[in-house]
Amino acid sequence: VDTIAQLQLVLGPEGVRAPGEISERYLGDWFMRAEPGVRPAALTLPRSTEDVSAILKICHAEGNPVVPQGGLTGLAGGGVPIHNCILVSLERMRAIVEIDPVAATMTVEAGIPLQAVQEAAAAAGLLFPLDIGGRGSCQIGGNISTNAGGNRVLRFGMMRDLILGIEAVLADGTIVTSLNKMLKNNAAYDVKQLFIGSEGTLGVVTRAVLRLFPNPTSLCTALCAVADFDQVYDLLGRARAELGGTLSAFEVMWPAFYRRAIAGRRKVPLGPDFGAYVLIESMGSDQMRDSDRFNEFVERAGEHGVLADAVIARSLSEGLALWSIRDASGDLVKELAPVANFDVSVETGRTGAFAQECGDRLRARFAGAAAICFGHLADSNLHIFVTAAVRPFPEREIDEIVYGCVRDWGGSISAEHGIGLVKKPYLSYSRSPAEIAVMKALKAALDPRGILNPGKVFD
Amino acid sequence: VDTIAQLQLVLGPEGVRAPGEISERYLGDWFMRAEPGVRPAALTLPRSTEDVSAILKICHAEGNPVVPQGGLTGLAGGGVPIHNCILVSLERMRAIVEIDPVAATMTVEAGIPLQAVQEAAAAAGLLFPLDIGGRGSCQIGGNISTNAGGNRVLRFGMMRDLILGIEAVLADGTIVTSLNKMLKNNAAYDVKQLFIGSEGTLGVVTRAVLRLFPNPTSLCTALCAVADFDQVYDLLGRARAELGGTLSAFEVMWPAFYRRAIAGRRKVPLGPDFGAYVLIESMGSDQMRDSDRFNEFVERAGEHGVLADAVIARSLSEGLALWSIRDASGDLVKELAPVANFDVSVETGRTGAFAQECGDRLRARFAGAAAICFGHLADSNLHIFVTAAVRPFPEREIDEIVYGCVRDWGGSISAEHGIGLVKKPYLSYSRSPAEIAVMKALKAALDPRGILNPGKVFD
Repeated sequence: VDTIAQLQLVLGPEGVRAPGEISERYLGDWFMRAEPGVRPAALTLPRSTEDVSAILKICHAEGNPVVPQGGLTGLAGGGVPIHNCILVSLERMRAIVEIDPVAATMTVEAGIPLQAVQEAAAAAGLLFPLDIGGRGSCQIGGNISTNAGGNRVLRFGMMRDLILGIEAVLADGTIVTSLNKMLKNNAAYDVKQLFIGSEGTLGVVTRAVLRLFPNPTSLCTALCAVADFDQVYDLLGRARAELGGTLSAFEVMWPAFYRRAIAGRRKVPLGPDFGAYVLIESMGSDQMRDSDRFNEFVERAGEHGVLADAVIARSLSEGLALWSIRDASGDLVKELAPVANFDVSVETGRTGAFAQECGDRLRARFAGAAAICFGHLADSNLHIFVTAAVRPFPEREIDEIVYGCVRDWGGSISAEHGIGLVKKPYLSYSRSPAEIAVMKALKAALDPRGILNPGKVFD
Repeated sequence: VDTIAQLQLVLGPEGVRAPGEISERYLGDWFMRAEPGVRPAALTLPRSTEDVSAILKICHAEGNPVVPQGGLTGLAGGGVPIHNCILVSLERMRAIVEIDPVAATMTVEAGIPLQAVQEAAAAAGLLFPLDIGGRGSCQIGGNISTNAGGNRVLRFGMMRDLILGIEAVLADGTIVTSLNKMLKNNAAYDVKQLFIGSEGTLGVVTRAVLRLFPNPTSLCTALCAVADFDQVYDLLGRARAELGGTLSAFEVMWPAFYRRAIAGRRKVPLGPDFGAYVLIESMGSDQMRDSDRFNEFVERAGEHGVLADAVIARSLSEGLALWSIRDASGDLVKELAPVANFDVSVETGRTGAFAQECGDRLRARFAGAAAICFGHLADSNLHIFVTAAVRPFPEREIDEIVYGCVRDWGGSISAEHGIGLVKKPYLSYSRSPAEIAVMKALKAALDPRGILNPGKVFD
């Protein structure tokens, strides 16, 4: 109660909500909700970096746990409340501080939704390339904290690659302002890296400098069918070499995915019996020349026997129709329920064999189990939907089999969603004891009282 | 003596050199040499990560300072010995562990020279894009420790962007192996970031996974003259938008630089009286289309009044001739001696005004001083040669004026060379007390006895 009174003194009555006034939406993310007994002690709604600093100073003095929240679209439970925590929602800190068209940067407060950033960049004739399904609700601070990936990683990188500067508040309320706008800055350690992908456990991000890019003006799309994974890798090498810096997507669909994705469609671009399907996209700055080059690339791959079949989109709408097959994943996961849904990484050249092995292990345990695979192959990122006829649905056992397979293949249990609460039991499958010891040393150095998002990522 | 005996026991007699047997070359880098009285206690030449771990365990137990050394081509004194230190040279660890053409990665030991990596990538039909003047001698471990920049940052990023995995040995000998080959890996904190750009103060890098790229097959070069810096920024915006992902260099030369660079040449591409000169280069994968697009970009800039004059290279040798003007910097710095040589960053859109102000301040203090500027403008990286007629040459005072100007403009005292010993007095000009406190907390967490490269970067 004393903590709450102190917070109200600093933030005013409208900046602090008591437990009874906290709406349901703050109690979970897109993947999970807090356990029924869990109640936050308060929700705080800071309006400035100084507010965040004041909140953390109070909580640090009291040893009160703090859970930072962005748009709550996470898929690993990183923003889900723990009992008696002070929630810090950045939703009122949503200003665009500056757009600098020469430096090609945008400086924003952390609570701004991703889509608002995309739109402001577009209005300035530029592109902020990060794009994920939660764009309307997710916030830049959350994108930083989870090192968000999404649809354009192959071309523009993950969130880490799109950040030039960060301001964050440490556990004890210290404000660390590194709002760098320069591409090159080797003045000692790059402190901002600590706050990217650490899921709010090392600091609360309050502002950031984002990199902007020229808007691509050309778009080419093709759907290719190949006989097997050796041809997938061959095609990838050709696409990288021949499309150069314009290659923007190389999405692979396994036959089990493709067949389900086209089920019930009247018009289907390619037959259902090939070994794998690859959606290839390029983005450039010269539609005529880029189209010619793209078409030649597809033709050449055909002449060299790498393709079994292919369709090139002749218009934007034909391109969207091809993408709609890949994007059927959203509906598919609902149709397949109950289903276990994975976001893992394995070395690009071993993806085909990994998927095979993973499916074999699942079927060996559960007759009739299916592993339905698709993914950003060039990014080494594989998504897997697993179904099984057993009831109750053996989610935990399926997790163990899939993550066990990831461990045995030296992959990552999280390509882009993070660890949060959901994947915490499996962290040691992808990280060695020495790596985890370094993480814990960083946590102890920056948050010695352990108040920042405790229980997330690791214990 | 006891430490030396222990080291010999582990490394064998050929793995440890006593002070009398250490050649001169280990006593300095390209910028500075150790003070005359400074003598290392021993030079160690490990052959494996286990050797490095054993060396550090021994030194950690004894509290003996350790200075890691790469190719000793640094420009900030980061690898220069301190008194009684154990030098750890990685030069015998130079193996290529693996080239994976599908993942487009190369795994190497840290002591391999950069040029050997470039050549091995080329032999595999791929490109490792990092390129700096020290390529024949500098080592990958040193490139990682200094977050090397160089000639292709605009297109491919700095060393940080080219590293997927790192193995490093901590101060206490713990081996942290994160030889990740995947583009996406969000399994908790990205521990490898700690070892990039920390100049050997947080760990000794022993192996790394490097990203490879397709070899560009097209090259276009132009030298442009413009009236003033507003036109430089306008031209940059056009180059980014119209050349898209192929823009690979945007080098600006101030008139004072250009005039000196062309002095004594018979054939000069552009007259000496323009406001600024810009060397623009694109690298792509389709020479004919890329050339057409590049020429149209230059023509369009001319039609819109952005260019005062321009020359497009019609052959590779014409392109090299244009580059030779920019590359005259190497000879120029020798001709100008005594000269103070700076590698700083300022926000791209303020570069012109910064250079003006910096020159004004220098001339206000030293009549006849000259600030001769050129740089990777799109990377926000400016190089400055400062001359003054005063003798003895007032280097320290010039440093104070230039770095003071950098501080006042919110720039960085080191764009790419690092801090080492040389820039340590000025670190607070570019980093806040809070930032430096976080750096020191990291140092204390990972190297509590302070044995790793003590006295470098900060005290």
